[in-house]
Amino acid sequence: MKRSCENDVSVLRYGHRPGRDDRMTTHVGLTARALGADQVIFPDNATQSAETVSDIVSRFGGPFDVERTDGLNATIREWSGTVIHLTMYGERVQDVTEVIRETCLHHQPLLIIIGGEKVPSDVYEWADWNIAVTNQPHSEVAGLAVFLDRLFMGQELEQEWAGAEHVVVPQACGKRVVDAELTTEADEMNAEK
Amino acid sequence: MKRSCENDVSVLRYGHRPGRDDRMTTHVGLTARALGADQVIFPDNATQSAETVSDIVSRFGGPFDVERTDGLNATIREWSGTVIHLTMYGERVQDVTEVIRETCLHHQPLLIIIGGEKVPSDVYEWADWNIAVTNQPHSEVAGLAVFLDRLFMGQELEQEWAGAEHVVVPQACGKRVVDAELTTEADEMNAEK
Repeated sequence: MKRSCENDVSVLRYGHRPGRDDRMTTHVGLTARALGADQVIFPDNATQSAETVSDIVSRFGGPFDVERTDGLNATIREWSGTVIHLTMYGERVQDVTEVIRETCLHHQPLLIIIGGEKVPSDVYEWADWNIAVTNQPHSEVAGLAVFLDRLFMGQELEQEWAGAEHVVVPQACGKRVVDAELTTEADEMNAEK
Repeated sequence: MKRSCENDVSVLRYGHRPGRDDRMTTHVGLTARALGADQVIFPDNATQSAETVSDIVSRFGGPFDVERTDGLNATIREWSGTVIHLTMYGERVQDVTEVIRETCLHHQPLLIIIGGEKVPSDVYEWADWNIAVTNQPHSEVAGLAVFLDRLFMGQELEQEWAGAEHVVVPQACGKRVVDAELTTEADEMNAEK
């Protein structure tokens, strides 16, 4: 499966019910992209979420790959790298993230599994790490976000985006969205000064 | 509006469409609870999300308040403390969180606004801070999670829960959920040794 290799981190959404899960699955994909992963792998039936995430990539930039597969289990079992499963039943994120960052990240491809409603017990066995962002029930999107921010130690917030049409310029109040070409030109003009 | 005062942080969900937004609004509430806020304030029509979050509080512990109001705007405008609005158009979270932690947190009540589909421009004006967890489109739940984890510097992951029926015990593999009374008894027995 194609991967870009900035961080070599992929996020796999395990399970999807079309209609009911569209929004959550889309948010998993968008969060993966915004917070430093290189790729999201959706179940084959998550067509609408895949389209939405791809549309965001084309408008706000990449690189970020959106894949779909009918072989979620095979993807996990045959992963040539570290497999991480985020679950409220796992080890505490604050106890294990540093080890993963130092021994796995940038050494081998990471696959982060984000469960849907029901995750079979096999997934817990296949994973190298079962990790909990709190042992409380909350949101798989929140868990993914906190894990990525901790894994990358905030460096993901500094990433630049290639091929964007639009760029949001941070504002204390209000909204400012500019054409991406204009910001590139402005940067070049500043660099020439 | 009643608030418990551990951190004196409330999360307000701005806007809710019953049915369509139930799951996202519920996740906002559960994420607020799990990651250290003391209270969530929902729009009056978010009855189902309020019930779900209250049910989690009764099973997994608190303190955490769930409120509903038909006066979202008044709640924001009359807030006697700091108002923070999370938006992809705001200032960069990595630039402003330290100032908020040092000058506002534990000094005055914090209100964190999480937008739904459309947030009127007034909200940007009323907020003391408009803050972006990346200036990219992703998920309001992800943004809330990263902001809370950074605001509390991970201390929220260490909190203990009062009045829980169930306690999840962190596991490298599999699931372990125990009766809360049993863990209390076990702790007392260990303390007596």
